[in-house]
Amino acid sequence: MTTYRARQPHSRNDLGNFYEARSVAVIGTFRDGWFGGSVSIKSLLNAGYEGLIYPINPTYKEVHGLRVYSRVSDVPGSIDLAIIMINVRRVPQVLRECAEKGVKAVIVVADGFAERDQGGALLQREIVDIAERTGLRIIGPNTAGIVNTANGLNMCPYDAGYYKLRKGSVAICAQTGMTNPQAFPYRDLRFGVSKICDFGNKCDVDECDLLEYLGGDPETHVISMYLESISNGRRFLEIASRVALRKPVLLLKSGRTREGARASASHTGSLALNDDIFEAACKQAGVLRLERFNDLFEMPKMFAYQPLPEGNRMGIITITGGVGVLSIDEGSKYGLVISSLSPRTKGTLNAIFPNLGEVPVDIGPPAASVRDFSSRYPEIFSAVLADEHVDCLFNILWVDPVGGLIEEYETAFKRMKEAYRKPVVTWLYGPDRVRVDEMRERMEGLGFPVFPDPETSIRALGMALTFKNLAGRSS
Amino acid sequence: MTTYRARQPHSRNDLGNFYEARSVAVIGTFRDGWFGGSVSIKSLLNAGYEGLIYPINPTYKEVHGLRVYSRVSDVPGSIDLAIIMINVRRVPQVLRECAEKGVKAVIVVADGFAERDQGGALLQREIVDIAERTGLRIIGPNTAGIVNTANGLNMCPYDAGYYKLRKGSVAICAQTGMTNPQAFPYRDLRFGVSKICDFGNKCDVDECDLLEYLGGDPETHVISMYLESISNGRRFLEIASRVALRKPVLLLKSGRTREGARASASHTGSLALNDDIFEAACKQAGVLRLERFNDLFEMPKMFAYQPLPEGNRMGIITITGGVGVLSIDEGSKYGLVISSLSPRTKGTLNAIFPNLGEVPVDIGPPAASVRDFSSRYPEIFSAVLADEHVDCLFNILWVDPVGGLIEEYETAFKRMKEAYRKPVVTWLYGPDRVRVDEMRERMEGLGFPVFPDPETSIRALGMALTFKNLAGRSS
Repeated sequence: MTTYRARQPHSRNDLGNFYEARSVAVIGTFRDGWFGGSVSIKSLLNAGYEGLIYPINPTYKEVHGLRVYSRVSDVPGSIDLAIIMINVRRVPQVLRECAEKGVKAVIVVADGFAERDQGGALLQREIVDIAERTGLRIIGPNTAGIVNTANGLNMCPYDAGYYKLRKGSVAICAQTGMTNPQAFPYRDLRFGVSKICDFGNKCDVDECDLLEYLGGDPETHVISMYLESISNGRRFLEIASRVALRKPVLLLKSGRTREGARASASHTGSLALNDDIFEAACKQAGVLRLERFNDLFEMPKMFAYQPLPEGNRMGIITITGGVGVLSIDEGSKYGLVISSLSPRTKGTLNAIFPNLGEVPVDIGPPAASVRDFSSRYPEIFSAVLADEHVDCLFNILWVDPVGGLIEEYETAFKRMKEAYRKPVVTWLYGPDRVRVDEMRERMEGLGFPVFPDPETSIRALGMALTFKNLAGRSS
Repeated sequence: MTTYRARQPHSRNDLGNFYEARSVAVIGTFRDGWFGGSVSIKSLLNAGYEGLIYPINPTYKEVHGLRVYSRVSDVPGSIDLAIIMINVRRVPQVLRECAEKGVKAVIVVADGFAERDQGGALLQREIVDIAERTGLRIIGPNTAGIVNTANGLNMCPYDAGYYKLRKGSVAICAQTGMTNPQAFPYRDLRFGVSKICDFGNKCDVDECDLLEYLGGDPETHVISMYLESISNGRRFLEIASRVALRKPVLLLKSGRTREGARASASHTGSLALNDDIFEAACKQAGVLRLERFNDLFEMPKMFAYQPLPEGNRMGIITITGGVGVLSIDEGSKYGLVISSLSPRTKGTLNAIFPNLGEVPVDIGPPAASVRDFSSRYPEIFSAVLADEHVDCLFNILWVDPVGGLIEEYETAFKRMKEAYRKPVVTWLYGPDRVRVDEMRERMEGLGFPVFPDPETSIRALGMALTFKNLAGRSS
C-alpha cells in the first residue's frame, strides 16, 4: 500500500458524501462473475439501497433492470458518489468527468497505482491533483470499497455471496480489503456492523479522516481498525485521543518489528514509526492495540454487547483446572487479578460441593459427582457473579458431546443475563465441533460473547478494563 | 496442580507398563453417564483394545458383557495397568491391593488430593509412599488418563463421543485434561495421534519420564506438551536436549509472567522458574516454545506432514496484498525473510501478468482479470515453489463463496504435491465458513496444512525452520 499525500487535511470532514450518498454511479464492466459492476449493483439492490443507482458503461444498455448510461455526463440527475472499477490508465480521465459532473466522492477500486510501480505512482499523483483542484474526495485507489449497513450502501466490487449485513454498532476499517464482506464471514458474527471501509492506498481519505467521521457517527459505538502505515501520526493520535474517550478505538498496526517497519516504510514512503514510541503514544491517546489479525473481529464483541467492568478483579468459573495459570499470565498483562470470594459466597459454594468456594471455581468435581448438577449450575454462576469482590467473569464450559446440557445451560444463562451487569467472557470446548458451535451461537444469541481460546477470552476482559479506566479518566 | 515428588527418578523408564499394557483393571462405578468405569470400558472396546479387561466393583456382576470382579485380588490373571476412578479417600487402600496383586502401573483419576487442601496433600503423600515402597508407578492423581492409538488403549474416564482416534505420529501430553479426547475435537484434526497423556498432579510419573519414553517411542515423531510447572528443570532440559535433536519438542509453558509464575509456584510448591532463564535454557536445549493454547494442536501439523525448509527464505503467494507487512513482522521473530525471485521465475510470472514476479506474489489482480486464471494458478504456484531462492511458502487463498474453484484448486494442489519437497503453509479466508472448511479439509487431505490466521501460518514455518537449524547443528 502506498501513501501519497501532499495536501493539508480538509478542514471539513465530508465523508458523509460517501456513506450517506443518495445517488451513486457504478462505473465498470457488467459481465457476470465475482468482481465488477454487475456484482456491485446486485449487492446494492439486494441490500435494500434506496438511493438512485446509475450504471455507467458505453457498451451496455441495461443491467439488473437498470438503464446503463454511456458516461457520467449523460446522467440526468446529480451524483453523490461514484465507484470506479476500470483499468488504471483510464481512471484519471473518468475522474475528471466525475469532477465536471459535480460528483463529490469517488471510490477508486482499480489497482496498479503507487503500490505497483513508478508509472502507477505518477497516475496516483495525477488523481490526487484532480482531487485537490476540484474538491472531489477519493477513497483508494486499490480498495475493496465501503459499506453502510444503515442504508444498504454496499459499494464493493466483490461478490460476498450475501448482501444484507446485520446492522449494529461496530465499524470495521482497514488498509486492506481483508476485512470487507467478500473476505470475512460477517454472517457468522453475532455483532452487527455500522460501517466498513478499505482505505486502499489512502491517496486522499485516510485513517484520520475516517476516525474523525466515525467518532461523530451516531451508529458507530466501537471502531476496529487495521493499519500498515499511518499517514500523519500526530493528527492520528490527536483525533484518536478525542474519539477514544467516547468509543473504543481498537487498532491492529503491523510493522511492529524492525523488519516489518522497514517494509512498511519502503512501501509507503512514510517515515517508519518506532513502534515503542507509537505504543506509548497509543496508550496516552487511549487507543487499544490489538495483537492478532483475528482480534479485529473478536474484540469488538466485548464492547458491542457487554457492560464494562467496574474494577480489575476477575472471577473464574471453570470445568477444568488446567487453564488457571495461563489465565493469570494473560490477565496480568492488563492488570487483571484473580479475585477472592466473600465469606458469604464461599459458604454458598461450599454447601453445594466441598471446596467449591475457591477461585478458580472448579465445577469439574461437582459436575462429575453431583447428580442434579445442571440445575445447581445457575446458583453457582449467580453466586460468583453477584459477589462484591468480582468485577468480571471468565467462564469456561465443556460442551457435552452426547448429552442434552446445551438447552439447560441456555435456560440458565437466559435467567442470569437479566440479573447482573458485569461482563462475562466464555470459552467453550468439547470433542464435537458442531455442538460447540451450536452452544456458541446460543450463548452469543443471549449476549454472552464466546471466544476461540482462553487467551483471547482474557484479552477481551483486559481490553474492556483498559477502556473503562480510560473512560474513568475523562469523567 | 500440585507436585509432590520426594524420590529420585527411576533409573529404568518403565512407562511401557502404561502404554503397552496387555491387561487392564478398570476400578470404579459402572453407572451410565459421561464419566467413570462404564465409559472407560466402552471406550476400550470401541477402540479395538485387544488386551484383557477386568472391571472391578463389588456391587456389579457384569458390564458391557464383561464379568465384574469384586476386587483386584479376585482377578485370575496378572494385571499390567489399573485405572482408579473412586473417591479420593478410598484410593490408598485400593492402591495397596493393586500393589499386592502385582499391578505395575496405575492411573489415579480421582481428584481431591494435593490440588485440593492439606488433607488431600497427606493422601497424596500416602500414595507416593505406596508407590515408592512397592515399585508401582502412578500417573496422576487428578488425571484424565492416557491413550495409545496403536493398541486401542483408551484409558480415559470421560466419554468423548468417539473412540477410534486416527493413528499417527503426534504425542500430546499436558498437565491438564484439556488436551484429552473428551475435551478436544480430535476427529477434526488431520494429523494422527500416537500417545496422549494428562499428567495430573504428577505425584510420580512426570513430564521428564514421559519425554524420555516418547523420545524412544518409534510411533512418536512429534511431541506437543503443556506444562504449568516443571518438576525438575535440570533433568527436563537434559532429556529434552537429547530428544529434541531427533523429534520436535513443542512446549507451551504457562507461568510466563511474574504473576503467573507466582501462582504456579504456590500451587506446586516447586521453585518458581524465572521465565527468561527458562526461555534461554529451552533455546539451548532445542525445545520449541509455543505461544498459545491452540498451538498445541496447530503446530504439530507442520511437523506431521510437511518437509523441513532448507533455509530461511519465505515466498508468499497471496490473493490479497493486505498481510504482507504483518507476515514480515511475524516471520522476523523466527529469522524468516521474504525471498526475492530469480530472473527466470520473474520472467515466467511477468509473462502471465504484469508485475506478478514480485514477492509477495499478488495473484489478486490476475485473478480479477485473467479469464483462464484457475488454469494458470498451478503454473504460478509451481514457478514460485521451484525457485532456488525460495525455501518455504506462505500461501494465501480466497475461497470463492459461489464459484466452483475448490475442485480446480484441489486438482492443482494434487499435482503440485508430487513435484516439490518444500514446506507450504496455507491460510484460507472467505465469506462462507462452510466452504472455507471444505477447502481446508481437502487441502489438509492432500497434506497441505491450513492454519486459522496469518500469524499462526507464519509461526508454523518459523518453528519448522528453528527445528531444521537444530537438526543441522547435531549432524
